[in-house]
Amino acid sequence: MELGTCYYPEHWPATWWNDDARRMRDMGIRWVRIGEFAWSRIEPEPGQFDWTWLDQAIAVLHAHGLKVVMCTPTATPPKWLLDRMPDMVALDPSGQPRGFGSRRHYCFSHPGYRAESRRITQQVADRYGQHPAVAAWQTDNEYGCHDTVLSTSPAAQHGFRRWLAQRYGTIDALNAAWGTVFWSQTYRSFDEIDLPVQTVTEAHPSHRLDWRRFASSEVRAFNQEQTVILRAASPGRPITHNFMGFFTEFDHHDVAADLDIATWDSYPLGFTQNFFLTPEEKVRYARTGHPDIPAFHHDLYRGMCHGRWWVMEQQPGPVNWASWNPAPQDGMVRLWTWQAFAHGAEVVSYFRWRQAPFAQEQMHTGLHRPDRSLDQGGLEATQVGVELAQLAASGRDLQTGQVHNRVALVFDYDSLWMAQIQPQGADYNPLELHFRIYSALRQLGLDVDIVGPQHPLNTYRLVVLPAQLHVSARLAHAQEQAAQSGTHIVLGPRCGAKSATLTFPVDAAGNTQLPPGPLTRLAGVRVERVASLPPGLSTPVKLANGPAAQMQRWREDWALDGAQVIATFADDGRPAITQHGTVHGVAGWLADADWCFWLNTCAQAAGLLTTPLPEDVRISRWGDWTLACNFSDHARQWQPASPSAASAVLGSALLPPHGISLWHHRQ
Amino acid sequence: MELGTCYYPEHWPATWWNDDARRMRDMGIRWVRIGEFAWSRIEPEPGQFDWTWLDQAIAVLHAHGLKVVMCTPTATPPKWLLDRMPDMVALDPSGQPRGFGSRRHYCFSHPGYRAESRRITQQVADRYGQHPAVAAWQTDNEYGCHDTVLSTSPAAQHGFRRWLAQRYGTIDALNAAWGTVFWSQTYRSFDEIDLPVQTVTEAHPSHRLDWRRFASSEVRAFNQEQTVILRAASPGRPITHNFMGFFTEFDHHDVAADLDIATWDSYPLGFTQNFFLTPEEKVRYARTGHPDIPAFHHDLYRGMCHGRWWVMEQQPGPVNWASWNPAPQDGMVRLWTWQAFAHGAEVVSYFRWRQAPFAQEQMHTGLHRPDRSLDQGGLEATQVGVELAQLAASGRDLQTGQVHNRVALVFDYDSLWMAQIQPQGADYNPLELHFRIYSALRQLGLDVDIVGPQHPLNTYRLVVLPAQLHVSARLAHAQEQAAQSGTHIVLGPRCGAKSATLTFPVDAAGNTQLPPGPLTRLAGVRVERVASLPPGLSTPVKLANGPAAQMQRWREDWALDGAQVIATFADDGRPAITQHGTVHGVAGWLADADWCFWLNTCAQAAGLLTTPLPEDVRISRWGDWTLACNFSDHARQWQPASPSAASAVLGSALLPPHGISLWHHRQ
Amino acid sequence: MELGTCYYPEHWPATWWNDDARRMRDMGIRWVRIGEFAWSRIEPEPGQFDWTWLDQAIAVLHAHGLKVVMCTPTATPPKWLLDRMPDMVALDPSGQPRGFGSRRHYCFSHPGYRAESRRITQQVADRYGQHPAVAAWQTDNEYGCHDTVLSTSPAAQHGFRRWLAQRYGTIDALNAAWGTVFWSQTYRSFDEIDLPVQTVTEAHPSHRLDWRRFASSEVRAFNQEQTVILRAASPGRPITHNFMGFFTEFDHHDVAADLDIATWDSYPLGFTQNFFLTPEEKVRYARTGHPDIPAFHHDLYRGMCHGRWWVMEQQPGPVNWASWNPAPQDGMVRLWTWQAFAHGAEVVSYFRWRQAPFAQEQMHTGLHRPDRSLDQGGLEATQVGVELAQLAASGRDLQTGQVHNRVALVFDYDSLWMAQIQPQGADYNPLELHFRIYSALRQLGLDVDIVGPQHPLNTYRLVVLPAQLHVSARLAHAQEQAAQSGTHIVLGPRCGAKSATLTFPVDAAGNTQLPPGPLTRLAGVRVERVASLPPGLSTPVKLANGPAAQMQRWREDWALDGAQVIATFADDGRPAITQHGTVHGVAGWLADADWCFWLNTCAQAAGLLTTPLPEDVRISRWGDWTLACNFSDHARQWQPASPSAASAVLGSALLPPHGISLWHHRQ
Repeated sequence: MELGTCYYPEHWPATWWNDDARRMRDMGIRWVRIGEFAWSRIEPEPGQFDWTWLDQAIAVLHAHGLKVVMCTPTATPPKWLLDRMPDMVALDPSGQPRGFGSRRHYCFSHPGYRAESRRITQQVADRYGQHPAVAAWQTDNEYGCHDTVLSTSPAAQHGFRRWLAQRYGTIDALNAAWGTVFWSQTYRSFDEIDLPVQTVTEAHPSHRLDWRRFASSEVRAFNQEQTVILRAASPGRPITHNFMGFFTEFDHHDVAADLDIATWDSYPLGFTQNFFLTPEEKVRYARTGHPDIPAFHHDLYRGMCHGRWWVMEQQPGPVNWASWNPAPQDGMVRLWTWQAFAHGAEVVSYFRWRQAPFAQEQMHTGLHRPDRSLDQGGLEATQVGVELAQLAASGRDLQTGQVHNRVALVFDYDSLWMAQIQPQGADYNPLELHFRIYSALRQLGLDVDIVGPQHPLNTYRLVVLPAQLHVSARLAHAQEQAAQSGTHIVLGPRCGAKSATLTFPVDAAGNTQLPPGPLTRLAGVRVERVASLPPGLSTPVKLANGPAAQMQRWREDWALDGAQVIATFADDGRPAITQHGTVHGVAGWLADADWCFWLNTCAQAAGLLTTPLPEDVRISRWGDWTLACNFSDHARQWQPASPSAASAVLGSALLPPHGISLWHHRQ
Repeated sequence: MELGTCYYPEHWPATWWNDDARRMRDMGIRWVRIGEFAWSRIEPEPGQFDWTWLDQAIAVLHAHGLKVVMCTPTATPPKWLLDRMPDMVALDPSGQPRGFGSRRHYCFSHPGYRAESRRITQQVADRYGQHPAVAAWQTDNEYGCHDTVLSTSPAAQHGFRRWLAQRYGTIDALNAAWGTVFWSQTYRSFDEIDLPVQTVTEAHPSHRLDWRRFASSEVRAFNQEQTVILRAASPGRPITHNFMGFFTEFDHHDVAADLDIATWDSYPLGFTQNFFLTPEEKVRYARTGHPDIPAFHHDLYRGMCHGRWWVMEQQPGPVNWASWNPAPQDGMVRLWTWQAFAHGAEVVSYFRWRQAPFAQEQMHTGLHRPDRSLDQGGLEATQVGVELAQLAASGRDLQTGQVHNRVALVFDYDSLWMAQIQPQGADYNPLELHFRIYSALRQLGLDVDIVGPQHPLNTYRLVVLPAQLHVSARLAHAQEQAAQSGTHIVLGPRCGAKSATLTFPVDAAGNTQLPPGPLTRLAGVRVERVASLPPGLSTPVKLANGPAAQMQRWREDWALDGAQVIATFADDGRPAITQHGTVHGVAGWLADADWCFWLNTCAQAAGLLTTPLPEDVRISRWGDWTLACNFSDHARQWQPASPSAASAVLGSALLPPHGISLWHHRQ
Repeated sequence: MELGTCYYPEHWPATWWNDDARRMRDMGIRWVRIGEFAWSRIEPEPGQFDWTWLDQAIAVLHAHGLKVVMCTPTATPPKWLLDRMPDMVALDPSGQPRGFGSRRHYCFSHPGYRAESRRITQQVADRYGQHPAVAAWQTDNEYGCHDTVLSTSPAAQHGFRRWLAQRYGTIDALNAAWGTVFWSQTYRSFDEIDLPVQTVTEAHPSHRLDWRRFASSEVRAFNQEQTVILRAASPGRPITHNFMGFFTEFDHHDVAADLDIATWDSYPLGFTQNFFLTPEEKVRYARTGHPDIPAFHHDLYRGMCHGRWWVMEQQPGPVNWASWNPAPQDGMVRLWTWQAFAHGAEVVSYFRWRQAPFAQEQMHTGLHRPDRSLDQGGLEATQVGVELAQLAASGRDLQTGQVHNRVALVFDYDSLWMAQIQPQGADYNPLELHFRIYSALRQLGLDVDIVGPQHPLNTYRLVVLPAQLHVSARLAHAQEQAAQSGTHIVLGPRCGAKSATLTFPVDAAGNTQLPPGPLTRLAGVRVERVASLPPGLSTPVKLANGPAAQMQRWREDWALDGAQVIATFADDGRPAITQHGTVHGVAGWLADADWCFWLNTCAQAAGLLTTPLPEDVRISRWGDWTLACNFSDHARQWQPASPSAASAVLGSALLPPHGISLWHHRQ
């Protein structure tokens, strides 16, 4: 558990660097990320490099014992490069080129820019690959940010056709797999296939899905070209990339396969304002962030690189980019830092050391204000630094990253894309559904792994698939095996509804199947009809011993095929919740509170102990440790079930508003 | 009264066709529509035709005694055609070409595509024009769907100039008719006239109106070219086109003039979600559809081809294209089918026989599920088939199409365009106004003809003009004659407000008139001022013996010119409702309930008997028959006024939720 | 105090002109604005002029003693000009050309159109510069209307680069001033700088600010070219331009520097519907307009040309261009006219004499209806004409323009642009903040000057800076001097937060400063953090003796540096309102009612007498006169504090709904 910060020496007078490095060290910071947007300072004229300033900056950091995360500067190619290669930019869905003057102005598919990306990466890698201060690498910055994964450039068009040819072999295979007979969309060759944009009405869903897969594969290829160079030039240093929050534009499991450590950029307040939360939640959590936003991503990204992960950018105060930018409550920066450590973070790195006094992010706070004074975030980072030092001094092993959970939530980018392409109801947001279910599990005090669809399942007691539209043979098999070994499986709506090409699934005999397709035997049900429900139209569900539940947004008509009915729809008596051995199913989207109730039942059936928690309190367990976080504006009471077996190392059973308590369990 | 279905043999293995045809027959289906999107299967390579599959499919249907509605496949030209003729697509208002990959990717004005349309039509007509199974034709599919009437292509630009030259003769005549002296818009030649798009602020209203007229005339010309070919090659078979719901982009009366039968595609739930209903109505009618949406269109399209009309596509379950896609309540498919017959439909044809397992509409249900099992819609269609058979067996004449109503509502596309171009208030939607007034009439138990502005009026007891902005001399005369013969006329707001070119009307002496222009003498009022009212600003209206009414959205200041005041505005005492002989006028947009109250008064003045109906029950009368439909989720009580003179042939006076009763009146 | 009207002789038969002129005269109208959109009538073919009709029209007006405001017709170049010079149009931010068919279809930066503008101006000026009827000039019409200030044309691109080169001298200076080191945005030459559009995410704020300044300077240059010609050809006639309401797209103080009289177009109902008012306000003031909308602009434009100003276009009834267009309550046209005079207007000119029966504005009322009958607006204008005549006859001096106020509100377009570019919260609208504060002052019965940032301040008792983001050295000095001379200064949030290039301010020693930057000493506080608050998240503020106040939308954390705390935030006890000598500060955006309470305190501290006013009543004072206006739908009671010293010349202490009273104070 170490602290870090993002630093831009080029933004400050060189005369400040030494003082900055000293203060970092004093604050308990061990890692400094640099260089990520510095291309035009490194190579101010084409082919003419100026390393002196960066050499000096790294030397200063090194002199203070700070470890450097060196970045490739490919997210911000200089203007001169764009002027030499004007077609390197992505085109938006209307075919409009995206211009210079901010960042990420490149198309992942442009061969010329790909060569430039390799060239500058090689340059930086050659220069600093063996530098003793350089202890890790970051490729580029926030792939996909500002909607930059999809491009309609000729290069992307060309690449997509090649990708399709490779995937399908023959055009007839593609026609069959997509079902292009519909609306006379049959193609005679791959060269006839355009990008699925600007169509008169919605484009073909299989076409759209493959385009997203292609675009995702381009991100992976772009990143991989950098990691190959970095590994060769800088062996032994882990490579990472800083992923984002609530972002599904590419398959992160794929890209992460080429990384050593997954990192992500955690801005709980910005995410609370800009994503799908209700207006009431946006107000309620305006200054704390929704309690489950950081943890959801911690658990997601922990699942990427065999458990190794960091927060690369931690919100330190108000940011500049959300619809509204309130200030975190005092204490939240410390809380978020500890919460990340509790979920296994090796490093929490604050963005940024000091607020810039100019340009796009001048309203984005840092640990320090632009006048060099310490800001509230810096104060709280200092506190965490002191706490870590004291705990280290006390000889306790904080067991970084020793997270071993018994609940898994399957998160599959491919299935999310399918549901995004065919939501069937304007508010059917599959990402939100994953989040709501995750949040319910967390409210039950459960610790959750978020895993990809390839991940083994049989080590878990409970596996939840919120919206696994496509279930591969491999995943179906994994579920069956897990179920046989006693793992309980929870299937959300739409599971197994689609084939790999976003058509109806087909059984071994080639016959079209109704959902849940390959899971039919496991679930013991057959989906005869699905319906989306407009806002205000929810249906009561009768639970045997539970509260009156509500199904909203989505609803399915199920025929039983072996499953037992746990709850029925009040209006027509059809099954709403079923159980089939260890497999639990729900025929729709439950209201938030009802997820909690039902998942509690499932967890208990799986032999898991759930933990009643006060409102807006969350607990996280790892190794012999438990962290309790109070996201509420009120003091809350919480302690471990057997308090005698645990001691409060930080805080106490009385959690102050926005406070934490850290408990060590005696072995 | 016959049932039909839409079938795509090319979507299914040929081995299924025979079984499908047999089951159609068993279900009581008589008509099968095929071929409408099959161009790339018919002509897979340019000029190389593959008729074998279609020959075979038709043969199979024919073998089971099914009648085929054969379609021209022009709504989905193949990719190879587009690649040979890239400029055949429509351009959107920003000049962007609309791409391949869905449907309707053509510009109505493109001469090359017009030739292709004739060529493929000729091919299909030559092949099947004399086929014994082919009993009717459908041209293209849903003209205008996905906003495809207006195109900004060079071809459209060129055509528009020619059309203007033909209409106005000289550029001076156009300048005068439009009033281009305003803002220096005077033109020196027709070649100076652009399409009215991308202007800095709103384009000239007369210019916009003529563009819409031109675009409508292009739809008519396109369709006419096909009907000419079909009539020559397939004499004796009626020709139709399937129109849409709540769709005003072209003048359907014009296009229908070249057809034998008008058909339309009825999706009550989709229309309920996607159009102007209030959020409360969208929830309340989510699973039944608003009761008056089907009937409104039945009555509209019955007015197109001398009373001959079908439902070509009947919603069978959830669809895929609305904002939300709930499932119809059980019973609704049967109810909708009977309702269509009651309004005179010759055929009700379900879209589609079987849900497709792929492509854009894979979430659109059919009579069967993709796994070939019977869906709820199929169950209900079967029931109607049985009921029709039983009634036929009982020897009763169902008197298909014998609809003879005494109330007419005038529906004029041209006037709707005028109000759409100059709404004057953001929620002044003339289509909604027509619908609200129609709905009020239906809630009063009145049967309504919706007629074009050329239709004779003097056979009616009551004629309603909801928003007839332009009143031609002919229409003014028809009204005067009708009024003289005792017909009562109801004038909504804005009647007579505009000339034929969307300026103020001019009297015989050339003097500008205030509204209602040519109706001034008839109405006995003069409109001195109009105002639109923002949401929340309504004005109470004092009715002599009525409830407190509200005027909302629109309000006019009237000076009396002979009319008698029936109600006044509460705030300034000006006339709100007037009567002048048999002519009734209202100076604004009444709240929904108030339309009912006032129109009841007008109907009674016209000697019509209105019928109190339970909430969400509607009745429809034809021949000796009355159908009662219960759109409510509750049982309702209804029977004819003289139950002894009628017998319930289906159902009874106790209407179950979503149920019907069918009454036969003794002569 | 004179009346005027906007007249388009070209819209009417020449035979009507004489009658029109006679009726103008009879109505008390003295000024007639003509010619502003008549280019295609003046020059129907390139280089061929037709002056005859205009000569005659002016002669007729002259014959009736009417004074003509002659316009340059440059807002509507003819189609033939556009066809000869297609690139003269502005391009929108997406690069799309804006087409012909409405108005303002030109780019301010296009050299060719600039030459045309000079050519036609010279022509009109030569023709009528010495005409005895022509008593004033108007340039163009409503610069910037319909979002026409910013253009992305090549000409604008080229001009912007030149402007930057001129402003910064070297590219290094620009790089330093903007802070382009951020995100590798460093430029090597001015030719590398694009317009800040179509960037992947937000463009550089300094870049955006300079673009807006450049575009504003182009408006000034365009206008100046006309004024130079007009002054030479028509000496002695004042030149004006008609500005708009709630419009900040260019720096009006700059443009006005080349004018003799500022005029503006006052449409209180349209502005009420189309701008930032709450839905409740939009309903409440639908038919009166918000009471402070006209006065806000009167006071703003009075500050442009040394106090000389007119209403060039006064709303006479419903307009056509707002989202909703309700009718003014009877009396409002008279009220608005008198209100303008009370704020110093020399002329109130009604738009337009007669409603056009054709084209875009046919639904925009005038003083007369299209059938030549007198409309309500004409009736009320007549009444004002009579009242003015009677007052003149009574020998009283109405002291036109003798407005001498003791409260100033600083309005700086540059600072508004900064806040618009970096609002930091989606509802942080700096224009609204100015308006809300102005409205609070007016509700306190204070008369207000709205002044530019260059205006001397020390003649005022109270100076309010609602959101002066950039405080120049000059302005800081002016404030210090004013404060020293006893002027009280009120600083809204964000004052002094930015440098002249939209970065953080820098002190004399070159160190970055926290806000309020150069005002730190004056304010006695330092802003340590700012936050925007989403709707629904407001914070109570504890005032010593005041009501419970609320801070909403915006909130700052202040450290005290000498100031005294007047009120604190209830949640964290930080300062919410401070006082430092005569300088008052507020750390956020107060709720509407709370502005009133606090500004009352400030005003009283400044020795100003505030006046309790009934709801929706406003008073305006000038010379020896006071006007009271009742915007409410109810009668209200109001009279001067010492009624014995004043006599009611119009009306009385009992103000009828929508009525006025005019009081003369004995000296």
